[in-house]
Amino acid sequence: MAESWSSSVDAHLDWDPGSGRTGIAAAVRAAIRDGRWRPGAVVPSTRALAHDLGVARGTVTRVYADLAAEGYLQTSQGAPTRVATAGASPQSAPPMPAAEPAHRWSFLPGRPDPSMFPRDQWLAATRRVLANAPNQVFDYSEARGSSVLRATLSAYLGRSRGVLADPARLVVFSGYGHAIHVLGRALRGLGIAETAFEDPSLGKYRDICAASGQRIVGVPVDGAGLVVSELDSPAAVVTPAHQFPLGVTMAPARRTALVDSGAVVVEDDYDGEFRFDRQQVGALQALAPERVVYAGTASKSLAPSLRLAWLVLPRFLVDPVVAALHELGAHPPLLPQLALADLISSGAYDRHVRRCRLEYRARRDRLVAALPAHLTPEGISAGLHLVLRLPSAAAAAVPAAARRHSVGVELLSPMWLRPVAEPGGLVVGYGATARNAFTPALAALVEMLTELSP
Amino acid sequence: MAESWSSSVDAHLDWDPGSGRTGIAAAVRAAIRDGRWRPGAVVPSTRALAHDLGVARGTVTRVYADLAAEGYLQTSQGAPTRVATAGASPQSAPPMPAAEPAHRWSFLPGRPDPSMFPRDQWLAATRRVLANAPNQVFDYSEARGSSVLRATLSAYLGRSRGVLADPARLVVFSGYGHAIHVLGRALRGLGIAETAFEDPSLGKYRDICAASGQRIVGVPVDGAGLVVSELDSPAAVVTPAHQFPLGVTMAPARRTALVDSGAVVVEDDYDGEFRFDRQQVGALQALAPERVVYAGTASKSLAPSLRLAWLVLPRFLVDPVVAALHELGAHPPLLPQLALADLISSGAYDRHVRRCRLEYRARRDRLVAALPAHLTPEGISAGLHLVLRLPSAAAAAVPAAARRHSVGVELLSPMWLRPVAEPGGLVVGYGATARNAFTPALAALVEMLTELSP
Repeated sequence: MAESWSSSVDAHLDWDPGSGRTGIAAAVRAAIRDGRWRPGAVVPSTRALAHDLGVARGTVTRVYADLAAEGYLQTSQGAPTRVATAGASPQSAPPMPAAEPAHRWSFLPGRPDPSMFPRDQWLAATRRVLANAPNQVFDYSEARGSSVLRATLSAYLGRSRGVLADPARLVVFSGYGHAIHVLGRALRGLGIAETAFEDPSLGKYRDICAASGQRIVGVPVDGAGLVVSELDSPAAVVTPAHQFPLGVTMAPARRTALVDSGAVVVEDDYDGEFRFDRQQVGALQALAPERVVYAGTASKSLAPSLRLAWLVLPRFLVDPVVAALHELGAHPPLLPQLALADLISSGAYDRHVRRCRLEYRARRDRLVAALPAHLTPEGISAGLHLVLRLPSAAAAAVPAAARRHSVGVELLSPMWLRPVAEPGGLVVGYGATARNAFTPALAALVEMLTELSP
Repeated sequence: MAESWSSSVDAHLDWDPGSGRTGIAAAVRAAIRDGRWRPGAVVPSTRALAHDLGVARGTVTRVYADLAAEGYLQTSQGAPTRVATAGASPQSAPPMPAAEPAHRWSFLPGRPDPSMFPRDQWLAATRRVLANAPNQVFDYSEARGSSVLRATLSAYLGRSRGVLADPARLVVFSGYGHAIHVLGRALRGLGIAETAFEDPSLGKYRDICAASGQRIVGVPVDGAGLVVSELDSPAAVVTPAHQFPLGVTMAPARRTALVDSGAVVVEDDYDGEFRFDRQQVGALQALAPERVVYAGTASKSLAPSLRLAWLVLPRFLVDPVVAALHELGAHPPLLPQLALADLISSGAYDRHVRRCRLEYRARRDRLVAALPAHLTPEGISAGLHLVLRLPSAAAAAVPAAARRHSVGVELLSPMWLRPVAEPGGLVVGYGATARNAFTPALAALVEMLTELSP
């Protein structure tokens, strides 16, 4: 429906005659923006433009007045109207970044099956929240998180993980990364500027912690977890229930040694719900709630895209963390927090976790049974991943083989901080694939692994 | 149903006989945690405890083994089992912080009416999203925001605000504060370490910007907006469509002078949807998309607790901002982003905004008509607030009067950065009160204002 139009000053407008004054203004703006009406150039007179467009002159006069108010045009008594000199020159935006390299079969670690997200239960929880919540839930919300969710999590974490989680010490974050950044900032404010991470561990969170102002050091992990005797930092982030990525559990003596070390300990309980072989080990936090920060998340139990995580803090950290939270200006929206609280209170969350636990346990068993004979999985029967060590040559061949078989896996080597003798290996996540695709995905993975045989 | 139990070592357990092994373990943990079983103390023998509890000895043996694995107990061959020395001493948490001082009638500025949140439309949008979204929306999501929302906002901002919003330059944040912090961090990385704010302006965002590493300076505002001739900083945050708090609109000459100043300009278009007297002035950003950052939010149009805001960035800022976003680890969850995109695409968002515009315009008119004769409102007919200047003595009397009438208002004085001759006044928000309470709220406000008469 667009018509072309030319005036004596060689301007060009694409204008839909049905769109009235707004349409004319839009067309003029567009012409100025993309440089067809150049900065400083005289624009058509109102009379000429009205004539050519077939509209009343007053219409064009008003369009020009509007555009002058917006800074597109410059008007002055007795002189012709001109395009303002600050008009933008044409600029094309950078292309959209390419999506992550696609693979057909995802064995990326740390991801739950997105097809198992309880859509119906989440919708039902959202419906109940929207039906029952008072109006103030749509006002500005407390930065530390919904008091309803904090009370609900307090009871849940005490019951399911043995955490001493007073709601007054519980703060909700936009994901674990947000929590680690805020905490690192708060610790720095208290004079704690070095944080130890397990070596190996996930580089992403080490980077986020470093960006908060912490110096990062690595402390080795052996079959009993973090080698506490080598810890010499005032703060340490650990995964005692299920070390990421190696999959070991921290031994009892190490647990007590760690909380006795004097360091502020961050207990990252990222997949505490998923222990398959026996009852879960209770949280370290309950041993020393004044020295241990307990960190939990809905990213593994529900979905990473919910961006919900929480810290249970020692008393001395509550105010510094809340202050740092205000400084960053980011805290999660209220409705999803209330939906999660509803999901937990209604029992739907526990049912979902149990359903997932059975599913992931079965997948792990199938994966272990299907592994080529030369590969032995490392790590306890828990969580969403296992580690396969590979000789250096085989590890180097992984990226090409993974591409060939369209399999997504992660290499172990980038997770080390210190140089180690045998860094090679794969971290295989068996949660990431949709349930109904696990059989062909497993076949593709095993084919790829067989190819890597010595 | 809880029974008390004592053993020879003067331990005390509250234990429900029906709760089995789990219940015994929980009771022992509780006893250790709150210090009744002291660190280092010998615990009852398995035989004694089993006898007293009336359970099999093997049950207690397993409980002790579990608790040793969790680090609560210390066992060694041939020696009695003891409470581990790292056991927490009793600690009570700090009391929950008091809620904001309650007032019955809220005239706090910058808040939309929470009773007008479109609950049904939001639920319907959530339902459509949950019914139609592919599984990957529950996986890790792009830090810069949903591509669906970015495309939708791109079209919406172009149509409604004249913004040149290529989706590749649009980044979604967990609220405007988050956006300002991330942007401040990115600018600092590019060597820009000083940001000018309008004086007066909201202290909260100046603080967040300062926390990102920016030095903050104030530039005065007059009846034509920011006094650009006094701007001498490499970056400036402005509210050109409706200055907060003074309510003026930036004059055309100032707009062009500002984008010609060479500073990176952040255009905070916080309430651009709500202009009552005439068509909105288009966004400054379209004049110079390579120098102006456009900032928008759903906090005024929908609800602050949604925690959704967005920036449209000059090309040179896209990568630095996305990198800073990753460093902070906080980005908004995906489902609400998709719900907002659905709301906009379906037309429900526009209908909601129009409904709100009519409502707020009517409230503003009623407020202006009801003001005592000695008070003249400042600011154009737009947005959610107006300013009432007061002599110093009257301004000093506001807090007590507000408490007496249970009215929530904000003082103008804390919004100034520089000392000014007449800082006194009130910022009155007419959006915050629920629709059905506006009449009595207005009466209370007017009563309070009358009391402040000279």
